[in-house]
Amino acid sequence: MTSVSIIGASGFGGGELLRLLLAHPGVDIKQVTSRSHMGEYVYQVHPNLRKQTMLKFSDPSQIEAVDVLFLAQPHGKAQQNITHYASLAKKIIDLSADFRLRNADDYEQWYGEPHTAPDWLGKFVYGLPELHRDELANANYVSGVGCNATASILALLPLVKADLIDLSASVIIEIKVGSSESGALGNIGSHHAERASVIRTFSAFGHRHTAEVIQELGLDNISLTMTAVDLVRGVLATAHVQVRSGVKNKDLWKAYRSIAKENPFVRVVKEQRGIYRVPEPKILAGSNYADIGFELDESTGHIVSICAIDNLMKGSAGSAVQCMNLMLGLEENVGLEFAGLHPI
Amino acid sequence: MTSVSIIGASGFGGGELLRLLLAHPGVDIKQVTSRSHMGEYVYQVHPNLRKQTMLKFSDPSQIEAVDVLFLAQPHGKAQQNITHYASLAKKIIDLSADFRLRNADDYEQWYGEPHTAPDWLGKFVYGLPELHRDELANANYVSGVGCNATASILALLPLVKADLIDLSASVIIEIKVGSSESGALGNIGSHHAERASVIRTFSAFGHRHTAEVIQELGLDNISLTMTAVDLVRGVLATAHVQVRSGVKNKDLWKAYRSIAKENPFVRVVKEQRGIYRVPEPKILAGSNYADIGFELDESTGHIVSICAIDNLMKGSAGSAVQCMNLMLGLEENVGLEFAGLHPI
Amino acid sequence: MTSVSIIGASGFGGGELLRLLLAHPGVDIKQVTSRSHMGEYVYQVHPNLRKQTMLKFSDPSQIEAVDVLFLAQPHGKAQQNITHYASLAKKIIDLSADFRLRNADDYEQWYGEPHTAPDWLGKFVYGLPELHRDELANANYVSGVGCNATASILALLPLVKADLIDLSASVIIEIKVGSSESGALGNIGSHHAERASVIRTFSAFGHRHTAEVIQELGLDNISLTMTAVDLVRGVLATAHVQVRSGVKNKDLWKAYRSIAKENPFVRVVKEQRGIYRVPEPKILAGSNYADIGFELDESTGHIVSICAIDNLMKGSAGSAVQCMNLMLGLEENVGLEFAGLHPI
Amino acid sequence: MTSVSIIGASGFGGGELLRLLLAHPGVDIKQVTSRSHMGEYVYQVHPNLRKQTMLKFSDPSQIEAVDVLFLAQPHGKAQQNITHYASLAKKIIDLSADFRLRNADDYEQWYGEPHTAPDWLGKFVYGLPELHRDELANANYVSGVGCNATASILALLPLVKADLIDLSASVIIEIKVGSSESGALGNIGSHHAERASVIRTFSAFGHRHTAEVIQELGLDNISLTMTAVDLVRGVLATAHVQVRSGVKNKDLWKAYRSIAKENPFVRVVKEQRGIYRVPEPKILAGSNYADIGFELDESTGHIVSICAIDNLMKGSAGSAVQCMNLMLGLEENVGLEFAGLHPI
Repeated sequence: MTSVSIIGASGFGGGELLRLLLAHPGVDIKQVTSRSHMGEYVYQVHPNLRKQTMLKFSDPSQIEAVDVLFLAQPHGKAQQNITHYASLAKKIIDLSADFRLRNADDYEQWYGEPHTAPDWLGKFVYGLPELHRDELANANYVSGVGCNATASILALLPLVKADLIDLSASVIIEIKVGSSESGALGNIGSHHAERASVIRTFSAFGHRHTAEVIQELGLDNISLTMTAVDLVRGVLATAHVQVRSGVKNKDLWKAYRSIAKENPFVRVVKEQRGIYRVPEPKILAGSNYADIGFELDESTGHIVSICAIDNLMKGSAGSAVQCMNLMLGLEENVGLEFAGLHPI
Repeated sequence: MTSVSIIGASGFGGGELLRLLLAHPGVDIKQVTSRSHMGEYVYQVHPNLRKQTMLKFSDPSQIEAVDVLFLAQPHGKAQQNITHYASLAKKIIDLSADFRLRNADDYEQWYGEPHTAPDWLGKFVYGLPELHRDELANANYVSGVGCNATASILALLPLVKADLIDLSASVIIEIKVGSSESGALGNIGSHHAERASVIRTFSAFGHRHTAEVIQELGLDNISLTMTAVDLVRGVLATAHVQVRSGVKNKDLWKAYRSIAKENPFVRVVKEQRGIYRVPEPKILAGSNYADIGFELDESTGHIVSICAIDNLMKGSAGSAVQCMNLMLGLEENVGLEFAGLHPI
Repeated sequence: MTSVSIIGASGFGGGELLRLLLAHPGVDIKQVTSRSHMGEYVYQVHPNLRKQTMLKFSDPSQIEAVDVLFLAQPHGKAQQNITHYASLAKKIIDLSADFRLRNADDYEQWYGEPHTAPDWLGKFVYGLPELHRDELANANYVSGVGCNATASILALLPLVKADLIDLSASVIIEIKVGSSESGALGNIGSHHAERASVIRTFSAFGHRHTAEVIQELGLDNISLTMTAVDLVRGVLATAHVQVRSGVKNKDLWKAYRSIAKENPFVRVVKEQRGIYRVPEPKILAGSNYADIGFELDESTGHIVSICAIDNLMKGSAGSAVQCMNLMLGLEENVGLEFAGLHPI
Repeated sequence: MTSVSIIGASGFGGGELLRLLLAHPGVDIKQVTSRSHMGEYVYQVHPNLRKQTMLKFSDPSQIEAVDVLFLAQPHGKAQQNITHYASLAKKIIDLSADFRLRNADDYEQWYGEPHTAPDWLGKFVYGLPELHRDELANANYVSGVGCNATASILALLPLVKADLIDLSASVIIEIKVGSSESGALGNIGSHHAERASVIRTFSAFGHRHTAEVIQELGLDNISLTMTAVDLVRGVLATAHVQVRSGVKNKDLWKAYRSIAKENPFVRVVKEQRGIYRVPEPKILAGSNYADIGFELDESTGHIVSICAIDNLMKGSAGSAVQCMNLMLGLEENVGLEFAGLHPI
């Protein structure tokens, strides 16, 4: 059994990680910490874990040595303490944004302040198995993924891998997100009476996750536009891309199927009948799947490429556990078998 | 008092029209028809009208002469009977899609079948006062507007009027819609258990309302991508447009404010603080306002232009009443004063 | 024109009141105050009021003399300053809970602290026109109503007025409420991710509004059980009552219709067909109606009596305006004509 | 491996059952049938099962012999074919209402028509392990449970088992339900635009599930009042009960804890802090838990006893699998380990 601990387990991402690790047959949870809920049973914050565990949140300053340490704190905390954490665990998986970018200048540009542990940036692998499966098998330090970046990257991955994109045109990604993205603390707009029934384009340009998409796909001319909708869990990325001249539907089918075949948690969704013909996050709650699909206007070469995920699973804790499995030499899908619900 | 009747008043658009006309000081409702609810009190179908009226749905084949006749039937019905209707009323406002396009070939291309009254197409004015205020004052035949077309047109109108668009690039409009768009009969996906919490991109290309946007704005290179979200009333159009080289924020402010100044039901929403900084349909339920806003990436000339409306008001019944007011020489906003609710 | 001001207009109830008064033909708004939003345009907080008014929130300590002063502050504030407010306005309508109870001991029992202006309690009339129409016509000081109390009182009023209740049995009222009841500041459970899709019985006994029901109806053996559900606006009270032996359906019809006839904003809803057969708050958003209905089990004498309202309208700002109309000798329904929306 | 088939697997309950059985380590699914979706892949109807199975819906008339046969058809079908089904499988679990009542007269009274296979009624065990665990171990024929009956029974079970109820008073159960209760075909009120945001008391008395509660608990004086709220999955039963004179909080704690101790899928929820202090179905989606809690007014002996479940799990497919495990001598919780999600 591998011993694991989670720093910062009272948030949404940390709670989901805890749920996954409790049910994981290969790990033993040693400590879960929370500054604001120290001493409380974890089921008092995450009520789905009642009768699953009698763990209590402990003091983050009392963390002990462990095989794998998960960091699920607010952004900025991990980089401040990374040296200490590395002294406690050989393997670290950080769900925050602190170590996602490889370049300290990029970090400063997108996050508005200098990185406090720039030397560590190069030691981390970006934790998306669909991009870095082989590296992850040998990695000690893995960053989590941005949920919106994940949906964007996976919407574009088939096109990038098969080299189908006309790079002279810009890539426009429209992202729709649920309320769990704002974190457990929320913001002034999180009140149910203000947040229910919204279609709120809260960021037209410049969302921080854009940096990850640029870095990981090597595409420059790309924008993410963010719209909040009425849903708790889920991200849908709808990417508008110009494909190279002559690209046909069959080329796209081949590219998308190839990605789905190589990756156990990617599915192509493109049906001619029924209600669920396209990727949508509603049915992915709790599941680690990323569903991808596309539609091509052959007359113009304009493709709409879609990816749906659960932001707390494939977009956060699910991918983190998938990385851990790879790092430990386990089957990639251990502990991630839950298929999601219908209806929900 | 102007006498009015509504053919097809049991649907969502017809019911909203009825609500507006009941409260309108200048009109007297003579008949409202419904084939499926003949003989029932209108408040049994539209429960908000209880204690407002004792009108019953009557037989559409028994319709009598009237000053203004509103047609709110499913698409295809109005064109079959337009000659008969014209014999009953000097002024006709048709909320369906039958007379929105001026060209019979365009109709056949987008609707998949030939128009059955092509000679009438040229007699109708497209019923969006923001485009055709002067013509409407003298019109006898007015078509309603497509809700998605309305949101798209108004998102682009400031840019088109001020000639700010770089026409060499394509215009991509992402539209998010509520469940009332599917009509009172709904479809296989309308069941609450399947429709709640969705982010469902049900149409990537080719939505019929595209034809109206092309016709009315004279833009060719344009696409509408439709995504259903969890909301009953409301449309948000997010348009991605390339502006001409050198266009600055101040040019855009001027263009948007100019449209808002000329049109009593258009507002510019672009705040630096608070929860409601951008146009959003949530707060427009029951209101005839179209809220518009924009964000410019000056480094690339990419603008995100947004328009929010209530699909049943500005996108249907509200614009129809606004047109009627203009046709009758009344103040444009009579009967349309409801400001919407917060919170909702 | 009657001059009015609102102390505390940035909350949900205050904002709704402001919306109603802006559209009211008989009043002129002088000041609206907000400590937390001083200096901001009211439309920045209540976005539905954009293009309706250029009023800004002013300093509550700078309030000037006015004909009618509305108090819409958090509970406890009005009683602290009532003497000062009374020096500024001959007529006061307080939406808070401060002056709803006539007895200082009752206040202390239910609110957990002594009332700071007990002498004023006897000067106020409870602001529900359905109970106190005649008194309100001559009143200078009127308290607002508790939204849950209003729904409970109106569910029971036909039975009480017609003396149909078997008082030896207890009256159990199950109340379901939307998220706007928690106020604009909300509480730890107001985050959309925690509040969406709930059915949360947050108070089994002892809700403060119980005191109003007891006082106004003279029933002792009564309990309110509160359950939060996924909705922004609305309250449904479902009252379980034992009727006197021998009470028949026709007695109930007579009692309910009588209340609806006497009160312009009460409707009986009891249909045999269609979707909307019983009172429900969904279609009342923005409307001042209270819909009432009942079902009798003749074999046991158990009646389920139901009342639906919009908590911010009939349960707060709407009743307050209705009271103002009565106090000023205006038609009771002036400014309250909005019928509500379908669908919504 | 035990071979199983499902008759009627395209509905909500059948789909959930299929999801559970696909992940169950002890069974092998032979056939799943659907008259309306014959020949389609099951993932085209239940999109969460994509990449989980390549099963197709087969013709119900072509069903073959199997170890355990699940019937998940609309009510009325199972009784018509029970003899045939019994010839195909030694063990049958019927999720419909056909064999829940032991008495043919009761069936006729509550379902409005005579039972067509009355001799079979006595052969079935009511499939709630919390009531019939020992019998189930030896049963060949097991009926499913009504979801509302399950929530009602489990809300009352601690009180009944410990004999704490004052039987001279009536038991009033207020039940709030989600939209998946109406089944995959829905009804006229299922359209999202009509069903969203409802609080709709659609049945004051006489719900069919009442018969099961009466039969299984031996309580006569009981009523179920049904209210639809905005939620897809979930039932909350709030029972109002008079306890015997002298019953104290500690007696109730003991009674509730005892039930939770004896039953692996029952939890007591009664917290003094945090957001989730009482049982609520929101966090139970996909989980087989029944959460129970209570609140006592010691001054009156009025207790509010609450039970929350997922109607498709503990209220249907989950209990059915739990029964199957008992019938096969497996651990009761095999295949039912999913703990539910937070937030959702």
